[in-house]
Amino acid sequence: MNTLYFSPGSCALASHIALAESGLPYEIRKVDFGANEQRSEAYLKINPKGRVPALVTEHGVVTETVAILAYIAQLAPAAKLAPLDDPFQFARMQAFNAYMSSTVHVAHAHGRRGYRWADQESSIQDMKNKLPQSMRDCFRLIEDGMLEGPYVLGEQYSVADAYLFVVSGWLKSDGVDIAEFPRVQAHYQKMRERPAVQKAIADEKAA
Amino acid sequence: MNTLYFSPGSCALASHIALAESGLPYEIRKVDFGANEQRSEAYLKINPKGRVPALVTEHGVVTETVAILAYIAQLAPAAKLAPLDDPFQFARMQAFNAYMSSTVHVAHAHGRRGYRWADQESSIQDMKNKLPQSMRDCFRLIEDGMLEGPYVLGEQYSVADAYLFVVSGWLKSDGVDIAEFPRVQAHYQKMRERPAVQKAIADEKAA
Ligand SMILES: N[C@@H](CCC(=O)N[C@@H](CS)C(=O)NCC(=O)O)C(=O)O
Ligand SMILES: N[C@@H](CCC(=O)N[C@@H](CS)C(=O)NCC(=O)O)C(=O)O
Repeated sequence: MNTLYFSPGSCALASHIALAESGLPYEIRKVDFGANEQRSEAYLKINPKGRVPALVTEHGVVTETVAILAYIAQLAPAAKLAPLDDPFQFARMQAFNAYMSSTVHVAHAHGRRGYRWADQESSIQDMKNKLPQSMRDCFRLIEDGMLEGPYVLGEQYSVADAYLFVVSGWLKSDGVDIAEFPRVQAHYQKMRERPAVQKAIADEKAA
Repeated sequence: MNTLYFSPGSCALASHIALAESGLPYEIRKVDFGANEQRSEAYLKINPKGRVPALVTEHGVVTETVAILAYIAQLAPAAKLAPLDDPFQFARMQAFNAYMSSTVHVAHAHGRRGYRWADQESSIQDMKNKLPQSMRDCFRLIEDGMLEGPYVLGEQYSVADAYLFVVSGWLKSDGVDIAEFPRVQAHYQKMRERPAVQKAIADEKAA
């Protein structure tokens, strides 16, 4: 059994959607950010980084969205969640996911968790002010090239689509109208229709 | 032929070391950060993100260190640069690399490129001030668990070691003494002895 530790609506939703698509058995466990549970002694034993997602498997724990998404795809080849037989296409998928994780998610985090990188109130506010522009810059690149369409890799659906969907869902609260990016918006709407996406969102709400 | 676009001593050195270990044919092309060449029209055609590394292959361009490292390992299975036959160990390697890229490299970048996330001079300075502490926090986790020893994954060398080596090499300029982290320091010294590491560093100097 695989257990995914998540917080509702966080980046862990990408791994959650991938699990829901995979056909693998899994369960989810909510980490209560309101109670700072990600920093509790019990949770730090699972993920010393104090973050979600963390996937507890029979072999051990896997952290980091980029790693978890590829791992789920590899564990469930029949679900065709990644171009597993084509190293170049797999690398393109990993490059997309790594960009989401190292650049887009990081830009977003400056709106809420600026204290990771600066101490003064004025700096935190400065970061918040810049957030819409930096998210816009990232999504400009996605709109103009990285999202091949209709899916990230073109005709083949992959875990990269789950990741893009989740981060696109943050745009509104980051002060950016998704309609500025019509191809991203079409992707977002298409994703919302997938049963696995609906199930993952509903299960996070109910948890 | 694979062509790696790099800037000396940047994160691209990790991909460069992996290529030097791989036995694959490759060449390197310097992108002159002093002349802002990463933002030139010609380079943006290769990598619209305006960053290094970028690996130009016969199939197309791969960006993002996490993706390039895994791709090189997959193209050169005989060099044993990743646990390719064990999805869980591969996921552990990817998790390490994703942490380097999304958290440790990002922490480091706040010392030089704070303008990505804030505009005011005082915020940029605040980020610089916090840099040693945030790098220390990252390396504490690496020292205390993520680096299994002697290599990242234990006895098996992998591309994750090249990545750790490169980022460890930034500590000094980030205001942190590597000697605070004895296991990381031992890893760094062991890496420096590898012919591929010496070749990559020398070739970047000569380029
Ligand atoms: N690089 C990690 C980032 C994980 C991350 O930052 N998760 C956030 C939620 S989206 C978190 O756990 N934040 C809790 C905190 O910072 O205390 C990944 O891609 O999985
Ligand atoms: N997430 C990317 C980051 C690449 C990156 O930020 N590279 C730096 C050098 S270490 C760069 O090209 N900076 C040039 C600039 O910001 O103008 C990766 O892991 O490859």
